[in-house]
This record gives sequence, C-alpha cells and structure tokens, in this order.
Amino acid sequence: MKALVYHGPGKKEWEEKEKPTIQEATDVIVKITKTTICGTDLHILKGDVPAVTSGRTLGHEGVGIVEEVGDSVKNFKVGDRVIISCVTSCGTCDYCKKQMYSHCDNGGWILGHLIDGTQAEYVRIPFGDTSLYHMPEGVKDEALVMLSDIVPTGFEIGVLKGEVKPGDTIAIVGAGPIGLSAMLGAQFYSPSEIIMIDLDDNRLAVAKEFGATKIINSADGNTIEKVMEYTNQVGVDVAMEAVGIPVTFDICQHIVAPGGHIANMGVHGVKVDLHLEKLWIHNITLTTGLVDTNSTSMLLKTVQSGKIQPEKLVTHRFKLDDMMKAYEVFENAADEKALKVILEAE
Amino acid sequence: MKALVYHGPGKKEWEEKEKPTIQEATDVIVKITKTTICGTDLHILKGDVPAVTSGRTLGHEGVGIVEEVGDSVKNFKVGDRVIISCVTSCGTCDYCKKQMYSHCDNGGWILGHLIDGTQAEYVRIPFGDTSLYHMPEGVKDEALVMLSDIVPTGFEIGVLKGEVKPGDTIAIVGAGPIGLSAMLGAQFYSPSEIIMIDLDDNRLAVAKEFGATKIINSADGNTIEKVMEYTNQVGVDVAMEAVGIPVTFDICQHIVAPGGHIANMGVHGVKVDLHLEKLWIHNITLTTGLVDTNSTSMLLKTVQSGKIQPEKLVTHRFKLDDMMKAYEVFENAADEKALKVILEAE
Amino acid sequence: MKALVYHGPGKKEWEEKEKPTIQEATDVIVKITKTTICGTDLHILKGDVPAVTSGRTLGHEGVGIVEEVGDSVKNFKVGDRVIISCVTSCGTCDYCKKQMYSHCDNGGWILGHLIDGTQAEYVRIPFGDTSLYHMPEGVKDEALVMLSDIVPTGFEIGVLKGEVKPGDTIAIVGAGPIGLSAMLGAQFYSPSEIIMIDLDDNRLAVAKEFGATKIINSADGNTIEKVMEYTNQVGVDVAMEAVGIPVTFDICQHIVAPGGHIANMGVHGVKVDLHLEKLWIHNITLTTGLVDTNSTSMLLKTVQSGKIQPEKLVTHRFKLDDMMKAYEVFENAADEKALKVILEAE
Amino acid sequence: MKALVYHGPGKKEWEEKEKPTIQEATDVIVKITKTTICGTDLHILKGDVPAVTSGRTLGHEGVGIVEEVGDSVKNFKVGDRVIISCVTSCGTCDYCKKQMYSHCDNGGWILGHLIDGTQAEYVRIPFGDTSLYHMPEGVKDEALVMLSDIVPTGFEIGVLKGEVKPGDTIAIVGAGPIGLSAMLGAQFYSPSEIIMIDLDDNRLAVAKEFGATKIINSADGNTIEKVMEYTNQVGVDVAMEAVGIPVTFDICQHIVAPGGHIANMGVHGVKVDLHLEKLWIHNITLTTGLVDTNSTSMLLKTVQSGKIQPEKLVTHRFKLDDMMKAYEVFENAADEKALKVILEAE
Repeated sequence: MKALVYHGPGKKEWEEKEKPTIQEATDVIVKITKTTICGTDLHILKGDVPAVTSGRTLGHEGVGIVEEVGDSVKNFKVGDRVIISCVTSCGTCDYCKKQMYSHCDNGGWILGHLIDGTQAEYVRIPFGDTSLYHMPEGVKDEALVMLSDIVPTGFEIGVLKGEVKPGDTIAIVGAGPIGLSAMLGAQFYSPSEIIMIDLDDNRLAVAKEFGATKIINSADGNTIEKVMEYTNQVGVDVAMEAVGIPVTFDICQHIVAPGGHIANMGVHGVKVDLHLEKLWIHNITLTTGLVDTNSTSMLLKTVQSGKIQPEKLVTHRFKLDDMMKAYEVFENAADEKALKVILEAE
Repeated sequence: MKALVYHGPGKKEWEEKEKPTIQEATDVIVKITKTTICGTDLHILKGDVPAVTSGRTLGHEGVGIVEEVGDSVKNFKVGDRVIISCVTSCGTCDYCKKQMYSHCDNGGWILGHLIDGTQAEYVRIPFGDTSLYHMPEGVKDEALVMLSDIVPTGFEIGVLKGEVKPGDTIAIVGAGPIGLSAMLGAQFYSPSEIIMIDLDDNRLAVAKEFGATKIINSADGNTIEKVMEYTNQVGVDVAMEAVGIPVTFDICQHIVAPGGHIANMGVHGVKVDLHLEKLWIHNITLTTGLVDTNSTSMLLKTVQSGKIQPEKLVTHRFKLDDMMKAYEVFENAADEKALKVILEAE
Repeated sequence: MKALVYHGPGKKEWEEKEKPTIQEATDVIVKITKTTICGTDLHILKGDVPAVTSGRTLGHEGVGIVEEVGDSVKNFKVGDRVIISCVTSCGTCDYCKKQMYSHCDNGGWILGHLIDGTQAEYVRIPFGDTSLYHMPEGVKDEALVMLSDIVPTGFEIGVLKGEVKPGDTIAIVGAGPIGLSAMLGAQFYSPSEIIMIDLDDNRLAVAKEFGATKIINSADGNTIEKVMEYTNQVGVDVAMEAVGIPVTFDICQHIVAPGGHIANMGVHGVKVDLHLEKLWIHNITLTTGLVDTNSTSMLLKTVQSGKIQPEKLVTHRFKLDDMMKAYEVFENAADEKALKVILEAE
Repeated sequence: MKALVYHGPGKKEWEEKEKPTIQEATDVIVKITKTTICGTDLHILKGDVPAVTSGRTLGHEGVGIVEEVGDSVKNFKVGDRVIISCVTSCGTCDYCKKQMYSHCDNGGWILGHLIDGTQAEYVRIPFGDTSLYHMPEGVKDEALVMLSDIVPTGFEIGVLKGEVKPGDTIAIVGAGPIGLSAMLGAQFYSPSEIIMIDLDDNRLAVAKEFGATKIINSADGNTIEKVMEYTNQVGVDVAMEAVGIPVTFDICQHIVAPGGHIANMGVHGVKVDLHLEKLWIHNITLTTGLVDTNSTSMLLKTVQSGKIQPEKLVTHRFKLDDMMKAYEVFENAADEKALKVILEAE
C-alpha cells in the first residue's frame, strides 16, 4: 500500500509500505476513504515532536471502511463505515473510566505519532471498540472527517472548558481551522457576541460568514483596546487561544473579564508570561487540554440534525495519491486560502 | 476614638480619630469587639497598594456590636452582635446578583483600603444588610473573627475553585494562615492525602496537627521530586498556591496531575512563567480570585456544628490599645511563631 | 387610575382605584406602558388561589416608565424604562443570596397575589433595585413584556432544570405559552430533536414554526408509543411538563430515557402517581419550581442579540382600557387561537 | 463446587453445582473468599424479581482471588485479589462511555440475577477488566466486600444524587445497611446535621454511633413534625429514602426544604403519591437510580486513607458452608440485630 512516511525533519515521502495487520484481538484494520492534514503534522515535519521517529506514517484523522477485525471486537464488523478518533482509548484504565481518553494509559494520541497513522491506504486502529465511531447515514463524509479531531477539539477544549453560556461575549484569537471549529461549537450555546481575531483578512471574512459578530485584524496592534471598546471596558466572558504563541496568549489575559475564562487550545512551543500580579484578584479560570473525544457521539447527533456543517471547513480536495501536493497547499495555507484539505481514495 | 492609621509607606500610628457616622441609609456603625491583622495590611504598610492613601484606618476583619443603623437597614438593629465581611456588597449590581461580591460595583474590598477599616474602636460598614452576618450563639468570638476573611478565602479560592473531592491528593504550598485555612476547608471534602509545603518547620508542625498527612520543608530544593514520589509520579489532584511569589507558583505547575487544578490564593506582585509548552497537553485548570464571601452563611453552619475550629489559627492575643505591639509580633511571625493575632476591646 | 380588580371567584372589574404611592424607601412606582394576562390570573379568578383576596389588582407582568422612586433606590430614576419581574426580591435574605428569589423571605411572587399588581395604570414595585430591569435599546417592547415571567419560567424551570444539552432529544408536553417559551429557551442549547405534544392542532402548527422537529396530537391516546418510536424505544433526554394535570405528567414519566430529566413547569392542583416501582432503577431526575428570574439579565442579552424573538408569542393586542375584552379572548384561547395578549397604555 | 441456588419463590439450596468456566475472552473466573447477602436477595426469594429463574446462583457482592482469565483480559492475572462490582460493565457501549454502567447494554446488574452470582465457591465475571477492582493492601477484606454494592449505592444514589454539601441538614429515612452506608458517604461532605429515622431502636443506636446528630423513632407517627421542629420549620436540604415503601417516601416529600433534594435509594414495589400540588412551587429535585459503581476507585482511596470504615456495617460472620444459616439470620435482621453478614471461604 501507499503511505505518507516521515523521514526526519523536513523529509517526507508518499511511498510503498507494508499493509498493517491485526496484532491484538482488539485491533481493527480500516481502509481509508478520506483523510486530511493537521497543523500538528506540520509541527512534526519541522522536527518539533521528537517522539515521532523516521519511518512513521503520519496522520490521525480520517474515515474509512472496516477491512478486518480482531477476535474481541464487538461493536464493528467488516464493511462498516467508520470515523477514526484522533485519540485512542483502551476503555479500561483509570483515565478512560473518567472519560479522559487523552491520557489513556494504553492509548491517547498515538496515531501518526507513536504508531503508524491515517495518511495511508490502510491503518491499524488499536482498541477499535472504543476508538472508532459508526458513520451515520445522511451526512457528508467530509463533515465526518472533521469529527476525527478538529471539531471535538474546538468543542471540548475551547467551548466546554471555556464554559460558553447563552448571552456570553466570547473572543477567539486565531481564525484558522481550530479557531473556526471552536466558533462552530460555541454557537451550540448561543453566545451574544463572537469576536474573531486574526492577521489574515481572508480568514476573518470566512469567520464572518460562519457567524462571527465582530472581526478584528490584529496587525495594527490595538486588538486589546478594540475588544475592551466592544465590551464597554469589561472584557469578554471567554477568551479562546487558537494559535499557540506568547503574543496571542497575552491578548487573552488582557481581554478576559473578571470571572471569565481563558481556554487555551493552541499547541505551545515556549513558555508564556502569566500576569498574576494583575489576575490574582480577577477571579479568572484558565484551562488547557488535549482533546478527549468524549463528545464525539454527541457531536455526531448535532451534525446529523444539521446544527453544524463542519464540511464548510474544507477548502481543497485531492486524490490520496496527490498527498505531496496536498501538503504543499496546506503548508502555504495563507496564500492558498486553505483551511482543511481533503484527501480521497479512488 | 482610637484607630490604626496609615501615614504612607512604613508609617502607622494608633491615634485619636473621629468616630464614624451614618452617611447612607444602608450604613451600619459597628463597635469593634475583636479584630485582627492580615498579611495584606503588611503589604499596604510597605507601600505595595498605592490606592491606600495617608490617613486611612487599616483593617478589614473583625466582630462587634451594632452601634447605629441607617434608615433602610432591615436585617440588623442596635445591639446585634455581628461578623464584618472583608468584602462589602451592595446586593443590587450585576456582580452581586451573580454572588461575585468581590467585584461589586459599589463595594468589593474597600474596608481599610478605600474607606476606613476595622482596626479601630468603631467602623462604618456600607450596605450593612448584605455585608454583615449575625454571630450565632455557642461559638467562640475568635472563631468568628476568622470568618471575616481568612476562612472564606481559603475555602472559596483554594477549596471550591480547586474543586477538592473525596479521595483526592492535594498539596498546599505555604503553611501560613491562608494555607492552613485552606487546609481546614479542604477537610470538608475528605481528601485522602494533604501534603503541606513550607520553609518553616514550626508551621509544618502546626499543619500536621491540623490534619496534614505529609509535610515537606522546601528548603532543600527537591520539593517537586518528593511530591512526585508521594504520588507515584502522577502528581496531585489539586495544588494550592498560598504564598504569592514565582517560585511557589512554579512548584504548583510542576506537581499538578493531568486533569488537575492549580488554585492560586497568593497575592502576587510580579508576573510568573507559565509553562504552556508542557501544560497545553496536560488538561489542567488554573484559577485565581479575591474572596466573594458568598460562602459565609454555610461556613457559619459548619463552625456551629463543630466541623471546623478556626480559633485554632489564633496564636497571640492583645488589647486593642496594644495595636502597635500586635503589629510588631505579626511582622515577625516566623520568630514569634505567630499565625493570627487577636485584638480585643476592653 | 384604572385597574383590573378581583372581587372574589368569577368576579373582576376594570375600575377606578387609588394610584399607588411610595411606602418604603426601596419602592419604585411604575407607570405601566404594556402588560399581559397569565394563565395564573385565570386560576385566581376561578378561586384556586385563596391567598388572593377581594379588592386585589391582578397581574405580575409588564413594562413601564419609572414615575417615582424611594429614597434608597440607586439603580433607577424617574423616566427610566423598566421591565417588571414577576418575582420580587429583597436581595438581602438567605434565599436571595442564593439567587433563589422565588422564595425571598420578603418578596417572591407577591404582585397581583399578595399586593396589587400590574394590570393597572400604575403599580408599586417593592425592592425596585433588585426587582426591575432596565429596558435595553433596540428591542421591541412586546418582547420585553415576555421577560417578566414566561420566558424566564420556560428557561429556568424547563431548560436549566431539565439540563438540555446539545444533541439532546427533548419532548414538551403542552404547546401553550409556557411550553412554547420553554421551546424557545431550549434552542439556546441546540437539541437535535424537539418533540411537541398537545391536543390543539393550531398550537402544534405554531410549535412547528417555532422550531419543533416533530409534533404529536395526543388526542388519539398513543403519544407514548409515538415518542418511543421516534427515539428508537430509548425515550427522551428531557421531558418537560407544561400543563399541570396528572395525565400530562404521566406521559413524561413514561417517555423519559434512563438517565433523563423530567422538568415540571405545570401548576398542579392535585397529586400525581409517581411510578417509583419502575423509575427507581431508571436513574432519572425530576425537578419542580417557581421561576427565580435570576436569568433575566442573561435572557435580555440573548433578546438584544436576536437569538430569540419572544414577541412571536403575542397573538392579540388591546388598549389597556379594553382589559375586560382581552380577558374574554384569553379565556377562550383555543377558539381565539390566542397565545399571549398585549395590553397597551395610550 | 457449592453454590446458593434459587429454586423458585421461597426455595433455595446450598448445593453442588458445576464450576464456571471462561466463555468469552473478556471473562475472569474468581474464587470467592468473602461474600455477603443483600436485601435484594430476599426480594428475589420472595419471587418479586421474576427475571430470576429457577437454578440461578444468587449474590452480587464479594471479594476473591483470580482463578483464570480470558485471552483479552489486560488488567488482571491469576492470583490477583479482586473486588467484584455488583454492576457489570462492557466499557464500550454508549451508557458505559457516559459512566452509566447501571444501564450497560451488555451488563448492568446481571450477577445473581440474569447470570450466576457470587454466593458460591467460584463465579464467572464477564468483562473483568471493567467490572473488577484490585484490592489495595492494608485494608480489611470485610471493608472491601462492602464496596461491591452497598457503599457505592449509598454514596452515588444517596449522597451524590442528593448533592450533600458542607453545612447541610440531611435526613435519612431508614437506618438499615443502605441508609447507614449513605450516612457514611454523606460524612465525606461534612453536613452539619444528620437526622436518622427508623422504627428500630437498635438501628437508631447504631446510627448514632456512626455519626447521626439526631435520631427519630417513627413509630409514633409524628416524624414530620419532629424534623420540621429540628429545622426551624424549614425542612432538610436532602432527604434520602432508604426503605422503598410509600410511607417512607411520603415522609421525604413532607420534610424537604424549598430548593432541596429527595434522593430515592429504596427498591419500590408499588407506585407512590407525589404531591405536585404542593411541590410544584417548592423548587425541589427528586432523583432515582441503580448504582453505577463509577465511584468505586474513589471510594477505595477513602477506605485506604481511613476516611470511612465500612467494615463497621458487619454484624455477623459465617463460614461459606453455613450459607443457609446466614440467610436465616439475615431474614430475621431486626431480632438478630443484624446489618451485614459476612460469609467466608475456609
């Protein structure tokens, strides 16, 4: 089969590789029908994630068809159409029993990281019963690819941890795929105002279409002043960080209202300054997290009933064999006006 | 009357001052019977709180007897024995309606800060109906003085925001009055392990008496290793910061378990480093806060039923006229083995 | 002035009455600009609420203009446009401090019940600071009249107590004003399915327009079977009772899923059978409640931002002087296809 | 092997039976070292649970040693000392993913009900990885037998669903094993008052020893008056039903305060009257439930740290071979002053 294989920093190849096989009775082999590329894959390619070693197939998102199941698998059978969760959960460890699958003792984020991933024709999914979801009828496949990672991440780490409530004023710093996903999820709770902040006018325009009530291009450096003006100098109920650098985190801590939440979604490479000399008296809550994907069943229901259309995040489509080209486009997301790219098996 | 008056950084005097009078229909004048000194008062005296201007009577804790009430006061009458809340709440602003009295538009922490405080023979309490509490029968006055500030602060900002649960392992960094108060409050929720961390062996010994299951003198610099060893390298469910400096905050972020809480109680003067490059994936919750004193009624019930004995925090007692001497002892808390000092009217 | 006065069971008159005056420093006199009639007013007229004595002006909903304020009133001044909350709260009793204004020791539901109400040219509102809300700009007055009672009741007692979540399947038994209000509020949380149940096809048609995904006319007696069929024999996550009789409550306990909620909103006159022999093992939660109106500020924000248009509940409009005629229409709601009627001062 | 076998209403025998064997790869065979008898077993023997058919081994509680494990079992190996959960969970169905193991599609309460149970020398436990718990060192076996069912039931269905909080006043109607278990669990949250109600003075005396602050013998029929007197006519924050008959449920609905909780723990055979004509305006929450045993890990920690000593519930001890005699004693619990009986393998 073909797979996108990492060969050390800066090096990747769409190459022949052995098809995966059942190793444990709880494994499921899935034939990929659609997959996508995540910002995290680009981080890996830069060498930022040393746990990923040369020879690893990348990718942790996708949908497909069950090709083979291990002996203990109860919930899936050959031919079933499935969504692959970016987080693998054994279902029996202490973290899994608390629905904190992100920290599963036997899983967590391992696909395209510690074991071979989904940017391939086939993938082995450990603990299939608890790590796969049936694809419902009547929903677009592209919408469901977004449920592997980006939609639950925005919802769980941005919206649930941020505790968005009806009537809230929220700000999202970063209008990339993850920021926009959080915005879709936030609308489940009917906030009154959604302020979207980014440097890219195209992404801000998309944000407006998706439901932002106000947009701010942060290029001119007075984002904080603008947010405070929009909120009568009170600040926002929830500030979501969707970039992962100190400057965007800093905006969040300056715009959050007393009693408000900062929900960090960004993947950070360096420490940030936390202004406790100001915030100690401000009664704020700051949260971080890798997605648990424990909201996937619920999100599926909202997609089925048309409450959100995550397929709107897809801007480009390629054949699976054009994987290298898809990476090129995604690596130049701003110029290409790319959000999520879809790779489709023939 | 006599009052402890601030005269600029480093200067204070126990001096004659005019007795306060009713200014608004919602005011109550209280004759102080017992008051105390807070770490915050020492901060003010160092000049760290510029909002406090020369001529201000300090103090925001105490119990007393109602001397006079404004025309609209419904809940209190002359002669009532009352606990003074360190936080004044109007009861009618948006923050008060959310029980977030700390940020009351017309109050908040103003006693001994923006208006004259409780280290005096008499004090004017604005919005008496919502800022005073009746002293229950059968409880020691000294226990109730602790309910002005320190017990609700430890409980609300440490225990409630930290979400202490039965069976939890918690660590409290700082065994001063606020850390010990948080420890008393934490025991309402039956944590399995309470690890107390401080540089002062005397305070650690007191902590042990109060219920700590493990104590760590952090002088030797390997506090983090010890906590991780005590927790099978998992970390604690709740880490409470009860000092207010970068090094103690830093301990908290290194010992918190995935899914755990950092509850900041310390009053910080400078920023801290937040290691989001490690914590982004750690699913933690960090909270800050000035006390709302919305738990006071509940805490009163627990004191009445003997669940906690906050009077155990009192180590020294003085006459009100010995205010200057009491400050001296409190300023040398370590040498004097002082926790809370009580000042009593004759 | 003119007022709608109760003169014992079955008797009411739109008659001359003395204009109310300030009695306490916390009172506000409001000139009514728009009011409405509630199902509860009809109960009173039947004699079902014996606490209402002859001579009482009815009504607990409405908006108006501040005519006069007591000496302690801080938040309102003459000329302010205000929404009157159906529940009066003193802001200082134990219940008020818990935001449980419905059980305020000095208020609660007293308007048009224990003191004169809003179906008059003027009304005295005790504790104005905590019982009135400023009318925001840019919102229709009729929408705001709905915020006196019906919108917060549906939201707090139906939606919040029922814990509606994104993706939920909910059923509302009763498509009158209160059931429809609950449906509006439920949509803040993006349920997947809203099943509306009533005997009146007109009301069900309105429900469909308002967002119901399924409607059931319960006349034929197989409502339970239909709901179970719609839910794959699982039942609904939330069943709301919006009528107040045993048969509608009974439907709720038969259609609630394991782990689900029954939120009772109906005003009941007699006991019901609770089938604990079936439900003890069913892990359900059943809630009841009089509205606290502690969500009013939040609801105002959602009305301002256009998330809900409660004015859609208004079907008929009258001049204040046509009060008797308005009652007639409202008493024949089914025939008149009436939901809420508005009475407007000239 | 020997087992206690049900042979239809009123008939049971301690008889030879085939030793269970592994049927599924997820099964674990456990050699019972200690088991006990539950009130539910008596219900079954009366014929109240028709799903239990002749030939069934009874019992759903116990501890033992792993004798054999299926091929997929990861968390347990032969020789491990284990606690058997009364509720079996597959870990992969929708209910299990919500930690609602009581309603597991492939398990739930099946031991001694739909499959052979624990009152035997050996038992087969389906889904061992998610249905067994390791016995911690340093804790008495008898304490751990109580963690199979009764301690989690009291804690989850009484305390957690009842939302017991520090300072609360609670009442428990029924001082049998389940009521006493709930009382132990309630103390995790430091209520101010625990009022215990029963007809049996011996059980009330035990309750007092266990921590009840007030006891009421309900024989004289004025229980409601007494509770109201003890609570200044306000009622209790939480009323727990621990019997399962209409009269005890009725007490609960009369003594619950506005805003309070009724937590039903009793197994009811017939419907009850719910006085919605009084309670609709009372803002109460009523809950029911079969235990999920999702608190077991947490409870284990509290037992290990000595927060509770559930072994105090054990009043009688027998050899496993004296099973028939143990039943006799348990069936005459009042005369025998029996709470929980322990059956021990030699």
